[in-house]
Formats: sequence, C-alpha cells, structure tokens
Amino acid sequence: MPEKIRIHIINGPNLNMLGKREPDIYGTFTLTDLEKTIRETFPGTEIAFFQSNHEGEIIDYLQSLWGQEHTGLIINAGAFSHYSYAIHDALKMLAFPKTEVHLSNIYQREAFRAHSVLSSVCDGVIAGLGINGYLLGVSDLIMKLKNG
Amino acid sequence: MPEKIRIHIINGPNLNMLGKREPDIYGTFTLTDLEKTIRETFPGTEIAFFQSNHEGEIIDYLQSLWGQEHTGLIINAGAFSHYSYAIHDALKMLAFPKTEVHLSNIYQREAFRAHSVLSSVCDGVIAGLGINGYLLGVSDLIMKLKNG
Amino acid sequence: MPEKIRIHIINGPNLNMLGKREPDIYGTFTLTDLEKTIRETFPGTEIAFFQSNHEGEIIDYLQSLWGQEHTGLIINAGAFSHYSYAIHDALKMLAFPKTEVHLSNIYQREAFRAHSVLSSVCDGVIAGLGINGYLLGVSDLIMKLKNG
Amino acid sequence: MPEKIRIHIINGPNLNMLGKREPDIYGTFTLTDLEKTIRETFPGTEIAFFQSNHEGEIIDYLQSLWGQEHTGLIINAGAFSHYSYAIHDALKMLAFPKTEVHLSNIYQREAFRAHSVLSSVCDGVIAGLGINGYLLGVSDLIMKLKNG
Amino acid sequence: MPEKIRIHIINGPNLNMLGKREPDIYGTFTLTDLEKTIRETFPGTEIAFFQSNHEGEIIDYLQSLWGQEHTGLIINAGAFSHYSYAIHDALKMLAFPKTEVHLSNIYQREAFRAHSVLSSVCDGVIAGLGINGYLLGVSDLIMKLKNG
Amino acid sequence: MPEKIRIHIINGPNLNMLGKREPDIYGTFTLTDLEKTIRETFPGTEIAFFQSNHEGEIIDYLQSLWGQEHTGLIINAGAFSHYSYAIHDALKMLAFPKTEVHLSNIYQREAFRAHSVLSSVCDGVIAGLGINGYLLGVSDLIMKLKNG
Amino acid sequence: MPEKIRIHIINGPNLNMLGKREPDIYGTFTLTDLEKTIRETFPGTEIAFFQSNHEGEIIDYLQSLWGQEHTGLIINAGAFSHYSYAIHDALKMLAFPKTEVHLSNIYQREAFRAHSVLSSVCDGVIAGLGINGYLLGVSDLIMKLKNG
Amino acid sequence: MPEKIRIHIINGPNLNMLGKREPDIYGTFTLTDLEKTIRETFPGTEIAFFQSNHEGEIIDYLQSLWGQEHTGLIINAGAFSHYSYAIHDALKMLAFPKTEVHLSNIYQREAFRAHSVLSSVCDGVIAGLGINGYLLGVSDLIMKLKNG
Amino acid sequence: MPEKIRIHIINGPNLNMLGKREPDIYGTFTLTDLEKTIRETFPGTEIAFFQSNHEGEIIDYLQSLWGQEHTGLIINAGAFSHYSYAIHDALKMLAFPKTEVHLSNIYQREAFRAHSVLSSVCDGVIAGLGINGYLLGVSDLIMKLKNG
Amino acid sequence: MPEKIRIHIINGPNLNMLGKREPDIYGTFTLTDLEKTIRETFPGTEIAFFQSNHEGEIIDYLQSLWGQEHTGLIINAGAFSHYSYAIHDALKMLAFPKTEVHLSNIYQREAFRAHSVLSSVCDGVIAGLGINGYLLGVSDLIMKLKNG
Amino acid sequence: MPEKIRIHIINGPNLNMLGKREPDIYGTFTLTDLEKTIRETFPGTEIAFFQSNHEGEIIDYLQSLWGQEHTGLIINAGAFSHYSYAIHDALKMLAFPKTEVHLSNIYQREAFRAHSVLSSVCDGVIAGLGINGYLLGVSDLIMKLKNG
Amino acid sequence: MPEKIRIHIINGPNLNMLGKREPDIYGTFTLTDLEKTIRETFPGTEIAFFQSNHEGEIIDYLQSLWGQEHTGLIINAGAFSHYSYAIHDALKMLAFPKTEVHLSNIYQREAFRAHSVLSSVCDGVIAGLGINGYLLGVSDLIMKLKNG
Repeated sequence: MPEKIRIHIINGPNLNMLGKREPDIYGTFTLTDLEKTIRETFPGTEIAFFQSNHEGEIIDYLQSLWGQEHTGLIINAGAFSHYSYAIHDALKMLAFPKTEVHLSNIYQREAFRAHSVLSSVCDGVIAGLGINGYLLGVSDLIMKLKNG
Repeated sequence: MPEKIRIHIINGPNLNMLGKREPDIYGTFTLTDLEKTIRETFPGTEIAFFQSNHEGEIIDYLQSLWGQEHTGLIINAGAFSHYSYAIHDALKMLAFPKTEVHLSNIYQREAFRAHSVLSSVCDGVIAGLGINGYLLGVSDLIMKLKNG
Repeated sequence: MPEKIRIHIINGPNLNMLGKREPDIYGTFTLTDLEKTIRETFPGTEIAFFQSNHEGEIIDYLQSLWGQEHTGLIINAGAFSHYSYAIHDALKMLAFPKTEVHLSNIYQREAFRAHSVLSSVCDGVIAGLGINGYLLGVSDLIMKLKNG
Repeated sequence: MPEKIRIHIINGPNLNMLGKREPDIYGTFTLTDLEKTIRETFPGTEIAFFQSNHEGEIIDYLQSLWGQEHTGLIINAGAFSHYSYAIHDALKMLAFPKTEVHLSNIYQREAFRAHSVLSSVCDGVIAGLGINGYLLGVSDLIMKLKNG
Repeated sequence: MPEKIRIHIINGPNLNMLGKREPDIYGTFTLTDLEKTIRETFPGTEIAFFQSNHEGEIIDYLQSLWGQEHTGLIINAGAFSHYSYAIHDALKMLAFPKTEVHLSNIYQREAFRAHSVLSSVCDGVIAGLGINGYLLGVSDLIMKLKNG
Repeated sequence: MPEKIRIHIINGPNLNMLGKREPDIYGTFTLTDLEKTIRETFPGTEIAFFQSNHEGEIIDYLQSLWGQEHTGLIINAGAFSHYSYAIHDALKMLAFPKTEVHLSNIYQREAFRAHSVLSSVCDGVIAGLGINGYLLGVSDLIMKLKNG
Repeated sequence: MPEKIRIHIINGPNLNMLGKREPDIYGTFTLTDLEKTIRETFPGTEIAFFQSNHEGEIIDYLQSLWGQEHTGLIINAGAFSHYSYAIHDALKMLAFPKTEVHLSNIYQREAFRAHSVLSSVCDGVIAGLGINGYLLGVSDLIMKLKNG
Repeated sequence: MPEKIRIHIINGPNLNMLGKREPDIYGTFTLTDLEKTIRETFPGTEIAFFQSNHEGEIIDYLQSLWGQEHTGLIINAGAFSHYSYAIHDALKMLAFPKTEVHLSNIYQREAFRAHSVLSSVCDGVIAGLGINGYLLGVSDLIMKLKNG
Repeated sequence: MPEKIRIHIINGPNLNMLGKREPDIYGTFTLTDLEKTIRETFPGTEIAFFQSNHEGEIIDYLQSLWGQEHTGLIINAGAFSHYSYAIHDALKMLAFPKTEVHLSNIYQREAFRAHSVLSSVCDGVIAGLGINGYLLGVSDLIMKLKNG
Repeated sequence: MPEKIRIHIINGPNLNMLGKREPDIYGTFTLTDLEKTIRETFPGTEIAFFQSNHEGEIIDYLQSLWGQEHTGLIINAGAFSHYSYAIHDALKMLAFPKTEVHLSNIYQREAFRAHSVLSSVCDGVIAGLGINGYLLGVSDLIMKLKNG
Repeated sequence: MPEKIRIHIINGPNLNMLGKREPDIYGTFTLTDLEKTIRETFPGTEIAFFQSNHEGEIIDYLQSLWGQEHTGLIINAGAFSHYSYAIHDALKMLAFPKTEVHLSNIYQREAFRAHSVLSSVCDGVIAGLGINGYLLGVSDLIMKLKNG
Repeated sequence: MPEKIRIHIINGPNLNMLGKREPDIYGTFTLTDLEKTIRETFPGTEIAFFQSNHEGEIIDYLQSLWGQEHTGLIINAGAFSHYSYAIHDALKMLAFPKTEVHLSNIYQREAFRAHSVLSSVCDGVIAGLGINGYLLGVSDLIMKLKNG
C-alpha cells in the first residue's frame, strides 16, 4: 500500500489579512476561504496549513519538515520573499518538491517585489494566477509525488 | 450554447529542439510530445500550436489574435523573453488572459535569464514545473474563460 | 458627543534601550520618560504605547488596528525602517493617519539609515527633532482627527 | 532640372496596429490614415512607405538605400529602438539625412522606452507630436535636400 | 529681559504658486494664507518670510543670517532641495537650529524627489504634514530657542 | 472672432552666444537671426522671445504664463535641461502645449547631455534639426492651438 | 581574586541544524557536538550557549548582556548577518570584546554572503576555519579579558 | 579513410555590406572577396558560407548543424553579438568547435560593442585581426578537427 | 610694445564668507585678504575680481570675456563645481587659458565634492593648496600668456 | 617518524613599517616583535617569514612553495589584498592550507579595504584580532596539518 | 634585402607555472614547451621570449622596444590584464603591431577576468585557442610586417 | 641657522619616456629636461629625484623618508595613481607636506584616469599645468616648509 502524500501550505506575513488587504489586488476571499477551497479540491490528500507573521516561526516550521518523505510544499512568504535569506536557507535544506506561489503578479508591481530571494531554492514559481495558483501548485506536487 | 474556447500555445526560439537541447535541464521529450500531451489532456478544447525562431513571426502571430474572444494564450518565448520589447508590446495589445511559461526555473540559472521583459504584460507566470507548467497553464486559462 | 481619539505609539527594536544607547545621539531620557512626557502633554487623549524587538509582534499589533476609526499612529521602527517590507505592507493596510518619527536625523548618519522603506506608506515623516518629534507628531494627528 | 527628392518612411513592429493599440497613447488613426495624410500633405514628393515586424527586413530595406542621393529617411522603429544595435549599424552606413520619430513622448513612459539606441546615428529626433511628428520630419528633410 | 526670538521661513522655487500648483498635492491655500496662518498661530514671535525662485537670492539671504543668535530657520527649498549643493553649503555655515519642511511626502513621489541634499545639514526634517508641518516646525524651534 | 494665438520661445543659458559658440555644432546664425527667421516665418502669429542665463528668471517667466489660454511654448533650456528640477516643476504647472527643442542632437554628444529632466513634462521633444526645429515646433503648436 | 570570565556563544538561524544541513560545507558535527567540544577545550571558563531562529530573541539576548563586565561574545548570526541592522545596533551597544565567526568561508560562496552587516560592529572576524574558528575565537577572547 | 572536415562560416547583419561600410574600420574588401580568400587559402577543405540580416535565419541555420561531426564553425554575428541571447542558446547546443570572430577590435570602440553575449558559448574569440582573423580561425578549427 | 595681460579671478557661492565659514577647512583669511594678497603678489598685472552666489551672474561674466586676448582666468566655482553644466558650457566657449582652483583638497571630503563638472573644460586644476593655489595659478597663467 | 611541519608567514607592502605606521590602528609592536612572538609561541615548528613591498617578489615566493607538503601559509598582503589578481592566481595554485590574516578589522575602515580579492582562494580569514590573529592562524594550520 | 622581422612574446605572472597550474584550464604543456613549439613553427623568424611576475619588469621590457621597426609583439599579461593601467600606458607608446593572447577563454570564467584593460591598446585579441593562439598570433604578425 | 629643506620628486611608470610618449599630451621635453629645469629654478634647495616603473621600488623609497623633517614631496605616480592602494598606504604614513602632480589634465581624458586613489592622502593636487605644475608644487612646498 502506498504511503499517504502530505502537502504543506505555508503563508507568510499579512496573508492572514486576505479579504481585508487591497482587495483589488488580492481578491475578497479570506485565508479560511482559500484553505477550504484547497481542501475541497483535493479531498483525498492530507493538507497542512500554516500561517505566521513571524519569520522565526516559519523557519521552525520548515525545519520540522526536514527529512520527511512523500511530502511537498507550497510557500507564499509574502514580503519575506524579498529579503529573508534565513527562509532561503531553511528551504534549501529540504529535499522534497517545493513551489513558490504569489497571488498577484509580483513582476507587475513595485520594484522591490520583482525579486524573490526564495525563487532560486524552489523547484517552480507560480505568480499572478490568484487562488488558482495554489490549486495548480498542489496538483503539480501530487503528480510529482505519485510518480516518485 | 456557449462559444468554443480556443487556446494558443506559442513557443519561441530553440524550443523546437526539445529532446536534443540540454536534456538535464529541459527533459527528453520533444516539442511534438509536448503538443500531443497537451491535446490529449484537454480533448474538448481547441488548441493551436505555433513555434518560431523568428521574433517577427511571433509578433505577426500575436497581432493576428487581436480582438479575439473566448481565447487564451500560453507563451514560452525562450531567450526572446529576456530582451524582446517588441514582443512585449505585441502581448500588451491583447485583452484576453495570457500566461508566461518556462520549462526550467529561470531564476536558478544564468543572471540574464532571471529577468523576463514579458512578465509584466502577462497575467501569470509559471516556471520550473517542466511539461506540467503548460498543462497547469492551460487548465487555468480554461477555468478563467469558462467563468468569463 | 464626539468619539474619543486614540493614538498608538509604536517603537521598534532597541528603542527600549533609550538612555543607555549612544546618549550623544539619542539623549539621556528613557522610553518611560518619553512615554510619561507624551501622556502629560496630551492629558485628554487616550494614548497606547507599544514597543517590541520582534518584527512579527509589530506586524500583529498593526494588524489589530485594522478598521479602527478616530485613530492615529506614530511609528519609530528603529532599524526595521530600513528593510522590513513586511511592516511596510502592514502599515499600508491601515486607512487612518500615520506618521513616521525618528529621534535622530537619519539623513546625517550611516548611508543605510538614509533610506526608510516605511516612508512611502506613511502620511508624514519627522526626523531629528528628538523627543519633540513625538509631541509634534501627536499634536498633528489630533488636529487631523478632530477636523476629520 | 533638379533631381526628384525621395523620402522613405519606415515603421517598425506593432505600428501596423495603429488605431487598435492603446488609443489613449497612440490615437485612433490607422497606419493607412497616417500614410494617406503624409502623401496628401506633400503631393509633389515621392514617398515610399515600409512597415515590418521583422528586424531583418528593416535592415534589408535600409541596406537597399545605400549610396542613394536626393534621399531622406524617417524611422520609427517602435520597440526595436530600445535594443536593436543591428538597425543602429544599418542606419549608420547611410549618408543622407535621417530623422527618428516617435508618436508618443517616450521620455514620459516606462523606463526602458526613455533610451533609444538609434538616436545617436540619426540627425534629429522628434517625439510626442503624434502624427504631426511625421509631417514635420518630412518637411524638414525636404528643406534639407532642396538646400543640398 | 530675554532676547526676542526671530524665526526665518524661507520658501524656494514655485512655492509662490501655492493654490494654483497641483492642488491635489499641495492644497488650495496660497503662500499668503500660509504666512498669515503662521503669524496668527505665533502672535508673540517675530517671523520673517522670504520666497524666491532664484538660488542665488536664497544663498544671499542665508548668508545675511550668519552669526545671528536667538534665531531659528525653516526652509522648504522646493526642487532646489534635490541638487543645490550651494544652498547646502550656505546652510552648513549657520549655527542656529534649522528645520527642513516639505508640504508633501517627498518619499512617495518621483524618484528624484526622494533625496534632499539639504537634509544632512539641517537639524530636523518634517515632510508630508501639509501646512501643519510649518506650524510644528516653528513651535519646535521656539521651544529649542527658549530652552537654549 | 477667434482669440489670437501667442507663442512663447524661451532660450536658456549660453544660447545668447549663438554664432560664437562651437559653430560646427550650433551653426553660425545668431539668436537675433533665429528670432527674426521665426517672426518672418509666422507673420500672423504673436511671438514672444525670452532668453536668460539665470534659472530663476526662467522660472519667473514661466510662472507669469500660468493660466493663459490660446498659448503655446517652446523651451530650449540649454544646459539647465540636464539638472534643473525647479524648471521642471515650473513647466509642469502650465496646462497649455509645451515643446522642448534642442538645436543639436543631444543624444550624440557627452553622456550628461543625453538625459533631459524636462522631457517628461513637455508634450513633445525635437532635437538635432537646428534652427528648423524651432520652426517646426512653432507650426505644430499653432496647429494644436487652432484645432484646440 | 580576579572576577570569573564569562563567554557567550550565540548562534543564529539554521545553526541548530548542523549535522543535517549541507554537510559538505558545514561538516557532520551537530550543534551539541560543537558546544561539547568548546566546553571541553576550555574547562575553567564559564560559557553560555544560545541559539535562536528568531531575530527578536537574539536582540533580547544581546540586550540582556548590556553593561556586563569580564564578558566576551562570539556571534555566528547565520543568514541574519547579511541584512539584520537591528542585530547590528544591538551589538553596537555592547562595550566588551565581540568576534564574528562563520563556519564556512563566506567570501567563497553566493554573492549575498560576501557582505556581513555585523562585521563593522565586531572587533574581529573569523571565517572558513570550521569548528576551529569558535575555539580560536574563544581563546582570543580569554586572552583579551585576562589582560584587561 | 578519414571523414572530410566541413567548416561553416556564419556572418551576421550588415556584414554583406563589407567594402561599403565604414572602410576605415572594416577595410575595402567585400564579403565575396572574403569568402574567395578563405576558399583559396584552404583548397582541400569543404567550407560553407552563410550570411543573414535576420536573427531567426541564423538560429535556423545553427539548428540545422545539430549533431554533425567533423564540423567546425566561425561566427561573426555583427551587432547581434551584443544582445541576441537566442543565438547564444542556439550556439550552446552545438558540441563541435566554435570560434567567434570580429574584424575590428571591439574592445576599442563604443561601450556597447565591448561585451559579446556569445563569447561565453564559443571555444575561442579572435578580434581585431581583420580578414586574417577568419583565416586563422579556420586553420585552428582544421587542426582541432584533424587531431580530433 | 606687448599687450597688457589681464587675469580674471572668479569666485562662486559662499566664497564671500571666507574667514567665517569652517575655518578649520578654509582658513581664517577673508575674500578681501585673498584679493589683496593676489594684487600685492602680482603688482604689474591687471587683475579683475568677481564673486557671486548667482549661477546666472557667473555665466554672464564669463560670456563678457568671450573673444578676449592676453587674458587668463582662475575659477573657484564653489559648490557649483559639482553640478552646473551651464557654467561648464560657458567656460567651454572661452579660448584663453583657464585654471580651476579649490582652497581645500576636494578629493578628501564628502563624496559629492570629489567630482567637478568643470575640470574637463579647464586647462588645469589646483586643489588643496589654500590661498597659495590662487597665487600659483596666477603665476602659471602669466607665464603662459607671456610665452604666448 | 612524522614529517616536520613548515609554516610560511608572508607579509605584504608597508607591514615592515609596523610600530611606525598608524599605531592607533596597527599597534606599537614591530614586524620583528611579531616574528619573535610567533617563533616563541610555537617553538617546535619550523616557521619561515617573508616580507616584501614588491608584488612580483610575493608571487615568486608563492610559486617556490608549489607542490610542497606538510606546509601551511599565512598571508597578510596589505593593500595588495584589494587589487592583486596576480597574487590571487598564485595562491590558487597552492594545494595546502592557506589563511588570510589582517591585523585590523578591514570591514570597519575605508570602503576599498572591505573587499579582498584573496579571500576566495584562501581557506580561512582572520581579521581584527591584532597580533593574536597570526598566532591563532598558525595554531589552526598546525592542527590541520597534524590531522592530515 | 629586407630587414629581418623580430617578434617579442611577453608572458606575465604565473605563466611560468604552465603545466603545473590548473591543467584542466591551461593544459599540461610547460612554458618551455610553448616557447619551443613557437620557435620550431617559425624557424626563419627571430623570436624573443620574456616572462616575469613583476609588473615593473614588463614595463621596462616594453619601453626597451620603443621606436623599433620590423617588430611585432604578443602579450599575455595574465592577471595583470585586469588592472595594470601602467602596462596599458607602456603598450600604448609602441607603434608596431601588438596582439593580446589568452590561453583560456577569459569570457567564460570569473567576472573579473572578462575585462582586460589592455585590449583597447592592442590591435587584436585572441582568446581560448590554447597554445595555438600564440602560433596564430605570430603568423598574423609576420604577415602584417612582411606586407608592411 | 635654519635646517636645510629637502624636496623629493617621485615619478612613476612611463614618465622616464617623456619626450617620446604622446608628445601632443605630455610635451617634447624629457625627464632629464624636467629635472634640470627644476634644479635651476630652485638653486638653493636640495632636490632629490626618483623614477621607477616598479610599484615596490616607489614604496621602498617612500618608506625611506619616514620620520624626516624639513622635507616635502611631489609625486606623479603615472598610471599607478589609479589603482595602487599600496602606494596610498605608504604615502599616508608620511607626516610632511605631499603634493600630487599630473602633467596632463587627467579629468579630460579616459574615464579611468579621472580618479586617483592617491589624492585623498596628499595635501594638494595640481593637474594639467605641464612642467609648470612641478615648479609651482615645489615653490608651494618650500613656502610651507619655511613657514613651518
């Protein structure tokens, strides 16, 4: 019997404010809506959600995943994406598939958002597809993990 | 009865060499394999493929799509992504959903590949997910076009 | 009867060390002295003080203010001012008047202090006026909130 | 009897889309309207029009003019203006008067448009005067060529 | 009997156009309104106003203040703030308290406005508080001069 | 009866030296010649000429035009073009058509001349067409104002 | 009788992962091994160890050392070294000897690691000597503290 | 019997204008002269010549050589050398010896010519030796291919 | 009989404050002292002194010297040295010997002072020799003018 | 019987002036004192000292060590550290342990001193520990060489 | 009877280590092998070899060639190529043909090697052709000198 | 009886080639002529001349002057001026008056010549006055040394 797949979805600072924060950019759905949609779209998959405004807590969480198998990860690190080399290092240690997701197209906005220090340590990047970016990212991870 | 959806998939220079070119980066499948997989994955959708090594032909093709409805576009402009402001301008004119796709994670390679002048005029960007990036991109476009 | 005005005064890392830290630059008064002076200068106004060395706690605090009315905010984010785009984003979400204050003239010191990533999301900036900068900032907020 | 003057008007990528492309920037007239207006304004002058989305075709065209006399040239190379050193080289070879024209004021728009690699090998530059820029450019060339 | 305090308020180029110039940024009050408000707010203080569009006249004025005591200065040098090292040098010579004021938040606007070459030779900076910035600046100077 | 059109032609520092200054670049005609040629070319138009080596006088002049109608402006600010943000601000306030003219092709010369801080607040730019640049600029303004 | 010497050894983010993280760069020993080796090498010295992934906790810890005597400090702030000006400020307040240590040669790796914002506020820097760097650093601190 | 060696000599934009273009830099010989000289110097070697002003045609030509053996290549891509990452990618795919040649010393001329984006994917570079650069490049390729 | 030599000594903004301004850098002598010393050192030479805080007046003065013979010029443009391209242009027009002088060693001070936009249009530069820099500059001019 | 270990200590330009040169930065001990202290601290180790102000002599010396075993090297190349790529190349050829030492903390001084072109070809770097940096460096080399 | 041709071949620092230094980049032949091969390839030509690790000796050598005729020069200045403006000046004085040679393709390696300050004062550059680069360089010089 | 004054005049690489090297820039006099002129102009002063193409010899020479009194120094370090931080350090150690001299106006030539790393450690700089620059420099040193 195959091992169960587990997907971790990590959201960084201010993403718990979805629905309140700049709705013209981020949409009117909340983080709870986002999580509910993801669960309903992938009913047979174990999905863990984590959100924090604390850089250190995100690193702790990433470290707790070290050495896991049958695991994939989606990270939207919010503004930490643009300077947190500590999260960069924590991601680099993980051997399983990792995908960076941004709700908005970060290349269309302020200059500082156009560079993510995490992109080079993730396997893929999805930006600007809104909530769908998470769904596509998860389905890609499942495919990769099933094909081993 | 709803209008039929049409998706255009545009590949730029050297992507016709897939399977021969740096297989450790781009994989061993060919462009024909890629197109076949896309067609088979979305049997009910009309999909048009276009590949060219000529910047001008890509611009001509993009212009021919002007004003179309029920249409979406995937573009992997290869190395043109990094300097062709003329393709940038041609994309900018199109009002329907546009997604930029790269097989490899362009942010992990040479410095010149980390900046695409097309990202700011596409709605989304998918990079580093290999052939799956195209499939995810198409499924996202279909969803968007169906929801109008 | 008009709503009571509430002013939040947020101090970032190392500002709890006032009185001990480089007194030739920051003066010999402590953070407690600063807070006491502010309270005594504006006896009729409700003022909340918050200090933290934790970037995440400042973001949490800022988020807790979301949607409040009759409210104004003074922020001296210390060294976070120069790189914390996460605090930038948290400030940007708040619709009420916000003023950035620095005790010293940050434009006269090391190069890295001359640029604050928070200035563009505050309404005003006051630097180099010492403890008076806080008093002026509060009186300006009160005037704005009363004229609403 | 004096030699007849001949003016060449070369338009680059996406200028065949005038009337459709960003009308608030480029106006609602088409390339055909533009060419008709130019011909009607200078009935006694031989004027040749050329438009292409292909960098190589523009270079071929410029080379075909080599060594001609009683000739002047207007070039609006569109986005090629910002990176085509190959067109730069082709223009540099031509000894007759050459004027660069842009419909919009390229110095008011995106950063990449503010620098043209062609300006240094043209005699003059006219930008931001719309369709009139072409008319003024042609009248200037005629005056120069008549005065020899 | 204590010496009378004198405050100089210097406004640079285009500030005589207040009320006419970009009212959404600078407000609808005129320079005369501004000066009247300041005088009325500080009835017991001698206040001198000076405005000029000429860099040299501002330097002459600043030099005339050399060696004065019981004096403070507010300067809003307008666009000169961004390149006039000559005004920088003239300010640097003055030993009494100097505060730089800007009506708008210069850090939120065009790139060239985000750097003032005068900030490093003033004691404090107030920006983005509109007309109130002048009032706060004057009250701060009075406090400093009284406590001398 | 239509309002009379008035055109202002403003020349900046060292342009009063035309005929003496680097004749291989600027030609042998004098400023008086230039002004005479313009008047004779547009006999039915009221044209005002202004030249100054003083930045402040140019700003004063520009301010005096504020709010005028049926008016257009040509400005060749000479070397001020490359650093005078104060003239930039003064031009920005004027709502009527404004065209920047340079006798020489500033993009072919020293690096500092290739960037004008005034271009972004003028409607159009003409460079490198010598005395004819003024004539074309005036005729364009007349056309705009007549069609106004 | 002389005061006892106390050495603080502070390790930043991801250093608790020693032994697991990139062993070809950091070696196979764990943080516990490192701490044990240090204690055994200096049996007569009181040594305190602190590790955290939280920027704020490191700052708190550093502040708690303020004003101590007979004290020295080794800091390996991991990735915080490259952007944490808040830790920079906290270090700057401490008057006793401080040495920055890096296990790997940070000048041989990615560009971002080549610059530490902490180096300028430490007394010395040791990099690339592996575990031995800590031992050398401690022996140097002891020598300095004994010689007063 | 050994396989016959084949050398491809590819010339980019404006090199078909040799003899006409800036003779003081490029000499008075034509492209035909160049090709004739090369053929006559290496009578026993099969040499194929290709020139195009079209980037896409050069890419098509390079792709047609994929997988060939006993083959070497000389490329003088003219101005494409300075920005065509698409030609860079096409060259990178070819496993046989490749030499970049420039007639003039590109390091002595305009700044943009001093950097070739093709040099890093060729085996060698020869610049400034005029027509002889081609002859030396071919003789080097023959030697390499014979020694295999 | 030889023509009499005339030397012009032009001092820019804030140099009329010599003796008052930063005496540790500029010394305690006044501008009058400086001028007196120069006159006394060169009794047989006609020397004209000019000082202004107004850029335009310096340009006017320089223009008034156009075409003069048996003439030399010393210019210390103060802070204008670092940005006044208008003075650069005015100096460039003058054919007689011109020497730039600075009292202090501008290469030892703030970054902005280390570059003078006037140096490239003067024949020589003397910096850091205090009042003697003027005397040496004048004696050099006299020698040059006498030797013709 | 084990091979004897030999340590080379190379000092570059101006280090022979120790004791005379900026004693507040470099201390009052001389190079002879430094060498004596090192010898006395490691009585059982063969230590060779070399100092030169000549870049070429340092390269010659480094080349003479090529291929040696049981050898380690300390280099303080003084100001050569900041630009001598030739010493960089000579160090790179040596396979035994190499440590870069600086007496002062080069990261706290002038900008040019903060970057050493040698750091990337040494195994370790010690800076700012004064004379002790040499002692620690030697003891580290001995430990490495003994453990082989 | 024609004058005898003399070729000087100058090798800079660390090139005397050929055969020992990074054989995967520089090959296994020694400098003696290189010189022997050159002499044997051109038996009728007088060839002088010079190698030094001392910048000054290379300058002395180059100066000794001043004014010679029937002379050509090959220089591979090793790492001096990247910063020695003094060798640049010495080369610039020599009127006979000069060619810069590099064994490896310097454009494929570390960033600092991609720019040679000598290229602009040599007639030609050959890089990446290994030992053959010298042979081709010499044959080119002979041809140039014979054709005079 | 006063101590005798001694002036050292140090010339760097390629200055021994005066008279041969680029006479349009450096003049036709030789170094011997220059030295003779200086001696004859200052007959009562002891003057020592030193020239070398070797950076190390110049450093040795400068070190030999350490601690001398009644001494002054002129240095024209030729191209070493632009990169030799080792000479910078050697100059910095000398407490007596030092003047940097350049024959040509280094601010009018190639970009690399416009910055001297020696200027910040000399007292004054004289450039562009030819041979007279040395004479003026010496007379200034004598005056300084006599006045103590």
